[in-house]
Parts: sequence; C-alpha cells; structure tokens
Amino acid sequence: MRDFTYYAPTEVAFGKDSESKIGPLVSKYNGKKVLLHYGGKSAERSGLLDVVRASLRKAGAGFVELGGVVPNPLLSKVREGIDLCRKDKVDFILAVGGGSVIDSSKAIAIGVPYNGDVWDFFTGKAEPDAALPLGVVLTIPAAGSEMSDSLVITNGDGGWKRSCGSYLLRPKFAVMNPVRTFTLPPFQTACGITDMIMHTMERFFSLDDDMTITDNLAEALIRTVMDMAPRVLADPEDYHARAQIMWAGSLAHNDLTGCGTTGDWATHDLEHELSGMFDVAHGAGLAALWGSWARYVKECRLSRFVRFAVNVMGVPNDFTDPEGTALRGIEAMERFFAGIGMPTSIHKLIGREISDGELAELARKASNGGTTTVGSFRVLKLQDMENIYKMAK
Amino acid sequence: MRDFTYYAPTEVAFGKDSESKIGPLVSKYNGKKVLLHYGGKSAERSGLLDVVRASLRKAGAGFVELGGVVPNPLLSKVREGIDLCRKDKVDFILAVGGGSVIDSSKAIAIGVPYNGDVWDFFTGKAEPDAALPLGVVLTIPAAGSEMSDSLVITNGDGGWKRSCGSYLLRPKFAVMNPVRTFTLPPFQTACGITDMIMHTMERFFSLDDDMTITDNLAEALIRTVMDMAPRVLADPEDYHARAQIMWAGSLAHNDLTGCGTTGDWATHDLEHELSGMFDVAHGAGLAALWGSWARYVKECRLSRFVRFAVNVMGVPNDFTDPEGTALRGIEAMERFFAGIGMPTSIHKLIGREISDGELAELARKASNGGTTTVGSFRVLKLQDMENIYKMAK
Repeated sequence: MRDFTYYAPTEVAFGKDSESKIGPLVSKYNGKKVLLHYGGKSAERSGLLDVVRASLRKAGAGFVELGGVVPNPLLSKVREGIDLCRKDKVDFILAVGGGSVIDSSKAIAIGVPYNGDVWDFFTGKAEPDAALPLGVVLTIPAAGSEMSDSLVITNGDGGWKRSCGSYLLRPKFAVMNPVRTFTLPPFQTACGITDMIMHTMERFFSLDDDMTITDNLAEALIRTVMDMAPRVLADPEDYHARAQIMWAGSLAHNDLTGCGTTGDWATHDLEHELSGMFDVAHGAGLAALWGSWARYVKECRLSRFVRFAVNVMGVPNDFTDPEGTALRGIEAMERFFAGIGMPTSIHKLIGREISDGELAELARKASNGGTTTVGSFRVLKLQDMENIYKMAK
Repeated sequence: MRDFTYYAPTEVAFGKDSESKIGPLVSKYNGKKVLLHYGGKSAERSGLLDVVRASLRKAGAGFVELGGVVPNPLLSKVREGIDLCRKDKVDFILAVGGGSVIDSSKAIAIGVPYNGDVWDFFTGKAEPDAALPLGVVLTIPAAGSEMSDSLVITNGDGGWKRSCGSYLLRPKFAVMNPVRTFTLPPFQTACGITDMIMHTMERFFSLDDDMTITDNLAEALIRTVMDMAPRVLADPEDYHARAQIMWAGSLAHNDLTGCGTTGDWATHDLEHELSGMFDVAHGAGLAALWGSWARYVKECRLSRFVRFAVNVMGVPNDFTDPEGTALRGIEAMERFFAGIGMPTSIHKLIGREISDGELAELARKASNGGTTTVGSFRVLKLQDMENIYKMAK
C-alpha cells in the first residue's frame, strides 16, 4: 500500500430538509457577496433557484447570478464568470446544479484571484495558490465534484477537455436533497450511476492491491449503487434508492475509495476526448469504453479482475480458470450498463459508425500527439489508445 | 433514513513517512506555541517524542510539554493542562498517543477559552463555543478520537465517566504511522480492535434500518477488521494488517458508518460505568457486555441481528428460524472476541465475581439514579440496565 493523505473537509447537509441550511452555511463560510451559478432552466422551473435566493436573502447575503452552464462546461463561460466576480467583488461562489456547474464554479473560483489566463491551470503552465470559497447545492448525483478536489473544463476552441486538481477546490459545503433528483430523466440518471461506479473502479483497478479496507469499502459502494439503479429507473420517486445513489456519488469521488492505492483513470482520460469531440454525456462515454479497456489491460493483474468478478459482480469463481472468471465479470458489468440503458460501444454512443480517421484523431488527442501516456494499471501509449478505441468502436 | 450532516474535516497523513509532516501541519494550522500532551514512557522510549520535538523545532514552533495522561483520562490532568496553556499562552495542542491522550487534549482545548469549570461541559451545564486547535499523532488505533467530535473524561472524585460532543472537537489533522503500533501488546491491540468494531456496531444496530449504503460500508469495515485481527496478533509487525486496522479505527468513528441512522450507544454507556468503577480497559469492557446487551434487545428488530449474523459473521441464514440465525450471529461475535483474548463476561473482565450490590450500583450510576435512559434500539431504564449487567456477570 501507499502512504496517503485523506482530506475531505466538505460539510455535507443531506436530506429532505437540507435546503434550509443554504443561507446559514454561506454565512458560516463568510459569504457576503455571492455568485449564484447554474445551468439551464430546470433549476428555475423546479423552484429550486427561488428557494436558494430566499435562503440567501434571509441570511443577508447579496448575490449576482450567472446561468447558462452547459454539459461539458466551457472555458468561455468560466471567463464570463471571472469577469463578473471581479466587477461585482464577489467573495463566495454558490453552484446550483451537477458536475458541470460545480466544475465551472471551481474554475471561476481559482480564476478570480489569478493574474494570468485561467486556462494556464489546465495546460500545466500554473498551479492554483488561491481560490474563492465555494458551496454546492447538488441536483445531479454523478460527477462527485461536490466533495472532490478536481474539475474538468472544455476549451471550445479545438474541443480540448482538460482537468485540474488542487486541495483548494474542495467545496466548503454541499447541500444534497434527494427529492431534487426525482425529475432526472432515466438516461441522465443512468449516466450518473455509471460515472460514480467508474470513479470507484478507476481507483479499484490498481496495481497496489494490498489496501484491503479500501477495496472492501469500494466493493460495498459499487454493489449498493448497482442494487439501487434498477429501483430508481423503475420508480424515479423512490426516495430511499435516490438517497443511496446521491450519497454514493459523493463517497465515490471524495477519495475514500482510493486511500492507499494509485488510481488508473485511463478510461476517464480516453472518454474525455470522446465527449470533447462528440459532445456526448460523460457517463455514457465511460460505459462505451470500459469493457474494451478492461479486456485490453486485464492480464497486467488478472487477480484484480477475478476479485472484481466474484466480489462485485457475483460471478461464481472458477478456480481452475481465472481468465474465464475475469472475463465473465467484465461481461456482467457490460450487461449491467446495457441494462440501465447505457451504450457499450462508440457507435451506440454517437449513433453512427466512427471512421478510422476519427479513431486515430481521438488517440492523437488523448496522447497529446503521442507525447503522453494515460493509465497506471497498464500504461497506455498512443498505439494502445488507438487499439482500445478500435475495440470499442 | 434520517437527514444527516457529515463533516469530518480532519486532514489525515497516513503511512510510513507521515511523521515528517507533523511540524508543517502544525504551521499550516497556525500553531506557534504548542502544548505537547502525552501519556507514559512508551512514546519517549520509542523515540517518537524526539521525532515530534525535532519536527516542531524545524517548523519554528515553540512548545511546552505535559505527560502523564492515564487510561480513562482524568479531569485533574485536564485542569493541569488548562492552567499550563493559560500560563504559557499556548495556541495549539498536539496530542501524541491514543484515545486517552486525545480526549485529555480535547478537554483542555475547550477548557482554555471557557470562563467556568471545564466539568460543566460534561454535566450539561454548558456547551463549548470555542476551542484551541488540536492535532494528533496517533499511536493506538482504537478510540477513533483522532477524527471524532467527542471525548470521554473520568472525574476521579466519584468515578464518574462522562462524555461531551461538539464539532469544535474534530482535530485539524491526524498523523498515523502504522509502524508505531507494532509494539502494542496483544491485549491492548485486541481492546482497540474491539472498540472500533463496537463504534461501528453501535451505529449499525439502529431502528433506522434503511440506509443501505451506510450499512454496506459498516459491514465491510467490520469484516476487514475481523480479517486482520488474527494476523496482527500472530505477527505484530505485519504492516499491511496494522495499516488496515489503524485506518479502520478512524473510519469507524468519524461518522461515515452512521450517516442516515441513529446510533444506539447503550453498550458504550453501560461500559463507561464499568471502566469508571473498576478502571478496566474500555475495549475489554465492551466485549464483556455486548453479547448480553444483544440477547436482551434483539427482539426489537430481529431482522437487524439476522442481517448482522449473515452479512458480517458469515452465519448461514436459516430462513425458517430468524431467531436462531440471530443468536448464532451473537454467539459467533462472542467467539471472535474470546478468540482475540477479550473477556465476554464481567467476572472475566475484573478477575473476580461481581457482587449484587456492585451490579445495582453500576445500574444506578448508568441511569443517573434512575433518572435517565440509555440506548435507542431498545430504550433501557434502570431495571433493564441491571438485568443486562446481571446477564453479563
């Protein structure tokens, strides 16, 4: 096992009555002038934004608003937010939405106090050393950004999707009311479920396979989500099932499931180019790639895939045939993805055949023109990436 | 399930090289004049205190020292610490030790800024509204106080053992090096293992049995600790097993295993009187009582004990006989406790028969003379407490 730091200081207010705490929490963390940042019309239509505004007013906090964050949030909106915050002397950012809104908020939070171009944080040219404090009212359980220390932003100019990590990016608080997730459409619900499972699996498939408690907690988390998934798809207003999924989404990405191990993250890296190029949903992109990644890398530590098959997927262990057991685990996961409406290939994801040129372009981008690798379970170079994209096509 | 707040902001530095971070972490949390608080001679003998002193000096932090904390830490030592901190204008407390040292440190931390008598916080006369910041260098995985929001102090004058809880009591950081636990004697190791299992079970045996993810994580945690226990007893220098237990001790009591449920805590409350009266080890006292508590309350929600038997203890589920399955789970847990050298009755715990008068006195104290109850899985009154003590005698 590896030495590790675990630092997940986000204060979580969870449950039906959690929204009453929004204003008090902003005050607790010294928010006096707030940027209220959100996406489209759903938060307005549902009445959530009015609840948030009322709570802020009651707490005596001033605010300005910036909506219009899109899935795969754009650098251009981040720049707009930074300008607005500077102009209006904003001292706190409140994200109302899912991962896209939170990530846009995080980028604004580190951009405001920085003298250069915020994109510098995504190209490796600079590292954040200050950030505005940030709170979250979560509406989509998926990305786990409400407790995580990272974000992903898309630079529309070229379709680059890049991430940035810093302990400064942990939100001060997250308000989570499972009732707000009742109206999520089935496809979006399933994408979120896939994303949180993948956040756990990216950490689980590690060559440091000697952190037993982390593995056991990770397996429990994935099994819980898989148990609840068909329940929320059958009954979107099943509070109990929605709550398990919402809390699992946070725990899947606050680092609990990675203590003592090295994450792989190749599937995420490969997916970022897919959703950057085709503007598809991140969770669906992950489902489209994972099985191919798993088959390509499984020999690097077959026992890990056997463990996954038996402990997570409930595949009977054929002790005489570890490879067969491992493969049946991968197939079972793909069946689960398909069963909740996720695509398990690129052509199902984008709705048409992908060309060889596009596949090569994806690999070129993911490897920064062949100069960088992804993954650690198996370190993947440009040719490996292209092979996996092809297997998944 | 219940609405909940989850707020575990302690920064954990875990592993072989974690001690190099002590000084930097004290500086990060603005410690300039530190109270270095510890127990007996073992931290001195092992060289740990010298490592801590050197790390503080290197970070430029001044410090004063107060050793001599005993198991079941005493109010008198807390008062001595408060006086010392005030005299020397201490602004940060660093606990080097296990739960007793951390709890003594926590009591000092809330006592220093308080104008009245610190015991007020334990009698309900006052609630803490300020505290000195606190860091921990953990040497005994057991109490979980390094991430928890509570403490227990014994008032030697009458043998009262009382607790206090406040979000102010969460340590700023915890440094955990599993190597430091290699020298723990088998009995103390087993007491710690029992304590962390009980912290999880006190939360698990709840009537709010619909927080699936919390239950699944709790079961995974207990199973991990039970798997590792014989390993560390067979080989005290098994780093991997020591590390699992050390991290499990923190997760068992940072509230992760209680999200959405109501804890019971009756076994803890009943044990506090035992260790208050006989000065026995807390973990051993818990093992002596739990089986009797479990048999006494199991009918209140038998399904919970069936779940425990099957999912945690691996008892085959006899679907035709839930009570039998539940009982076999309780018996299996008692066999586990006995197998790691824990007493499963009061006479084994204190090394002699306990008198009827002492049993009645324990129940009188635990119920504050019959005026208060303990537990929520089954609410226990004075007579119930006496019945359980008698079953356990």
